[in-house]
Amino acid sequence: MGRYEWISLTTDYGTFDGFVAACHGSIARIAPDVRVIDITHHVPPADVTRGAHVLAQTAPYLPESVHCAVVDPGVGTDRRGIAIATPGGILVGPDNGLLVPAAEALGGIDTVVELSNKDWFLGDLSRTFHGRDLFAPAAARIALGAELAEGGPPVDADTLVRLPAPVVSVGDGYFEAEVLTVDRFGNVQLAATGGVLDRVGQELVLNGGVRARRGATFADVDPGDLLVYEDSAGQVAVAVNNGRAVVVLSVTPGDLVKVSTR
Amino acid sequence: MGRYEWISLTTDYGTFDGFVAACHGSIARIAPDVRVIDITHHVPPADVTRGAHVLAQTAPYLPESVHCAVVDPGVGTDRRGIAIATPGGILVGPDNGLLVPAAEALGGIDTVVELSNKDWFLGDLSRTFHGRDLFAPAAARIALGAELAEGGPPVDADTLVRLPAPVVSVGDGYFEAEVLTVDRFGNVQLAATGGVLDRVGQELVLNGGVRARRGATFADVDPGDLLVYEDSAGQVAVAVNNGRAVVVLSVTPGDLVKVSTR
Amino acid sequence: MGRYEWISLTTDYGTFDGFVAACHGSIARIAPDVRVIDITHHVPPADVTRGAHVLAQTAPYLPESVHCAVVDPGVGTDRRGIAIATPGGILVGPDNGLLVPAAEALGGIDTVVELSNKDWFLGDLSRTFHGRDLFAPAAARIALGAELAEGGPPVDADTLVRLPAPVVSVGDGYFEAEVLTVDRFGNVQLAATGGVLDRVGQELVLNGGVRARRGATFADVDPGDLLVYEDSAGQVAVAVNNGRAVVVLSVTPGDLVKVSTR
Repeated sequence: MGRYEWISLTTDYGTFDGFVAACHGSIARIAPDVRVIDITHHVPPADVTRGAHVLAQTAPYLPESVHCAVVDPGVGTDRRGIAIATPGGILVGPDNGLLVPAAEALGGIDTVVELSNKDWFLGDLSRTFHGRDLFAPAAARIALGAELAEGGPPVDADTLVRLPAPVVSVGDGYFEAEVLTVDRFGNVQLAATGGVLDRVGQELVLNGGVRARRGATFADVDPGDLLVYEDSAGQVAVAVNNGRAVVVLSVTPGDLVKVSTR
Repeated sequence: MGRYEWISLTTDYGTFDGFVAACHGSIARIAPDVRVIDITHHVPPADVTRGAHVLAQTAPYLPESVHCAVVDPGVGTDRRGIAIATPGGILVGPDNGLLVPAAEALGGIDTVVELSNKDWFLGDLSRTFHGRDLFAPAAARIALGAELAEGGPPVDADTLVRLPAPVVSVGDGYFEAEVLTVDRFGNVQLAATGGVLDRVGQELVLNGGVRARRGATFADVDPGDLLVYEDSAGQVAVAVNNGRAVVVLSVTPGDLVKVSTR
Repeated sequence: MGRYEWISLTTDYGTFDGFVAACHGSIARIAPDVRVIDITHHVPPADVTRGAHVLAQTAPYLPESVHCAVVDPGVGTDRRGIAIATPGGILVGPDNGLLVPAAEALGGIDTVVELSNKDWFLGDLSRTFHGRDLFAPAAARIALGAELAEGGPPVDADTLVRLPAPVVSVGDGYFEAEVLTVDRFGNVQLAATGGVLDRVGQELVLNGGVRARRGATFADVDPGDLLVYEDSAGQVAVAVNNGRAVVVLSVTPGDLVKVSTR
């Protein structure tokens, strides 16, 4: 066994087609003893921002891994394929901002290479499926112990594509933050981290109209009532006990939510 | 390797977020050699009854395992986290009725403990994600051979929360039973077990109006016709050959279906 | 370890029920060291054609495996259960056409047997769930090294059920082909293989009305424009850069698309 016993996969491939299995196949052919944890394959097609958030919030809870992520609308263009070394694992995927938040969550960017070594590819590189032909094979070789420097030339971290920082502003008795994600339960996660909750009171109002209360878990408010809490990823989130906050707030990722003391 | 080489996971987490992967991560960090079988993560949110049925009907077909199940609308309240020992494996999850039908399917409840030993948690226990922080780690420790008694104090099985028993009644030439589940194919599974089919004839009528016939497999009736059969879990079920019984019967779990000799 | 370290699974079982897990369970009980790659479980119910295509296009990218596929509307009838040996692996499933395209993709049919040896079944054979009771157990036994001939008597390959060949016709400056599949991204894959693109020019028209251009990857055309390309499975496909070709073309599998030089 090489340097990493685990590879994680995060894609927008869905599970209707055989794309995810082909990536598993590439890994199994190169590194059969390595095991794979699927983070999610239901990133909405081409939604790099969503992919970046789910990867960044999940990777720290996995064993030290090579995290292979592919949400890649620029596949086949001259966008770079990269590998990023961090204190907490390696990230492999396209240079479109997808990997950077996870790199920060894993301790920061140590080194970056551009994956251009053709010997690392599997078969002829297709122009539309780098998950199978480039990224999963690279992740497998790295898991087996290959040096990143064998994968291609170093990249200056300052040249990496980065997503715009989400909006968060804090004021007197309020904060305002962009919606990062909405989960399966309809809970609305904001870009603000939990510490900002010190700025507001217990009785709150959202977007100037909807009453909510601070709490720690869903049942801290009555069924149907709104709760503002620090979620399991350390972010501020809004939930409805026995309900769906996303419906009450009528928001979507990127929208702003203002949380004020009532 | 400890006492169990397999852990199963059943949740309502869906596969859009990274929640399932975080549970896999907790297991991999504690018990990397244990392997995981995902039963389903598409239990409808907070539908404890559905989770209980799918777990009870699947667990007996897995190798002897630690079955970790999390459908947990009461997360973070004082509802107990428990582990149940049975002759056919261990069950881990919240004390809300989710585990009891599976315990019965695996041979009955031997012992129960409340999972309160903080040394078994992974990291700080969040108030909203006990799958990652409590239940998956506990399952991993048990799989490695930890004694249940190390996890917390014994629980009197009579105090466990139990789901209401589904309605089944049997009469002269008929039986009536609650719908337990509707599967992907639209087959309608009833709470009655297959033996009750001895009470009715071959030519049947459902809910007083819809004609059906007894059989053993779908093609025993013409395409579009209704079949009443014992399904692969040993329950009475209604199917339409080449069609969806749920549409014909227009039922949902909890509704009653009366099956009478025609 | 026996002859195959990997089994792949392709079904129409979905992931809402416990059916897939029960198949994993059957494999784990018989061949615990074998590892499973799930190709997809979201073949539309009873859509044998779709199952055949996704299996044929994915299996070649997996390590040499026993490929177990179950899309089986005739379960419990006298349709045969079969295993097919090919130069690139073994295929196990119902004799309804599902396995033949994959057999061709893996190098052609060497030998076929009918799976009738009751000692290979697991438990009593249900009439409605041969994935759990027959096909997954057979795949596990074969992976462990059992000879196909132990599974049942030989079958003449000429007697296998085969799907109708999809329509492909080639003319002067055009070709016409059936839609094989539409993937998650809305890309429309045709039955014609990439070589047929030599018959047409760079500037194209689809179905006599929609303008498109040849290219190699999505960004070879402007956002919203149509691209005709050889996809990662070697088939001709139609995509829209940043969009969904299936919506523009308004086609479904089985429909014809005519690609002509403009």
